[in-house]
Amino acid sequence: MYYSESTDIFIVSFPYYICPELLNPNTMTKAVFYHAGCPVCINAENRITEIVDRNKYDVEIVHLGEHKGRIAEAEAAGVKSVPALVLGHDVLHINHGASMAEVKG
Amino acid sequence: MYYSESTDIFIVSFPYYICPELLNPNTMTKAVFYHAGCPVCINAENRITEIVDRNKYDVEIVHLGEHKGRIAEAEAAGVKSVPALVLGHDVLHINHGASMAEVKG
Repeated sequence: MYYSESTDIFIVSFPYYICPELLNPNTMTKAVFYHAGCPVCINAENRITEIVDRNKYDVEIVHLGEHKGRIAEAEAAGVKSVPALVLGHDVLHINHGASMAEVKG
Repeated sequence: MYYSESTDIFIVSFPYYICPELLNPNTMTKAVFYHAGCPVCINAENRITEIVDRNKYDVEIVHLGEHKGRIAEAEAAGVKSVPALVLGHDVLHINHGASMAEVKG
C-alpha cells in the first residue's frame, strides 16, 4: 500500500478494502461499558470490545470498583447491574455480574 | 475514488480510509441474535445491529415466536432468556424481555 501524506492520496491493492466511514473521533458515538471486575464482567467486556464497530463507536471501559466516584453517573444513566453498556439513552444490561447495591457494598 | 476491477487496484483520496479487514463472508464470525418480538427485544436488536462491526460479524436475527423450531437450538447454545446474542460458546443475555419458558408458552 502506498500512502502519500501530503496529498491524501492512497493507492491500494487487494486485499485492502475501502471504507467510507470517517475515522474522526468527533463523528463517533460515545459508549460506556461499566463493570466491576467480576468474571461475568470480564467475559462480557471481551465480547463487547470484540464486536463493537470501532469505526463508529468510541467505547470507554469503566471499572466501578476502582472508580467508585462514577457509580452515581452510571445510576443516573439507568445502570441497574453490571456489566452494562450505555449507548445514548439506552442501557444494555449484559448478563448479570453484580447489582449496583453489591458494587457499592 | 477510482476502482479497477480487473487489476484490484484502488486509487482513493481523502476522506476515504483503508481497511485491512477482508470483507469475505468465509472469514466472518457468525453471531445469532434470538428474540421474541417484545419491546425490550426490539430495542436491544436495534442497538446490537447498530454497534456490531459488520466487517467482522455476520449477524442472523431469529424471532423465536415465529420460528419455534429453533427454540431447542437456542437452549442448546445456552440461551435462558431473550433477547440474547450467541457468539461462539458465549451467550450475552441483553436486558430481559422474556424467559425461554414464556417464549415456549
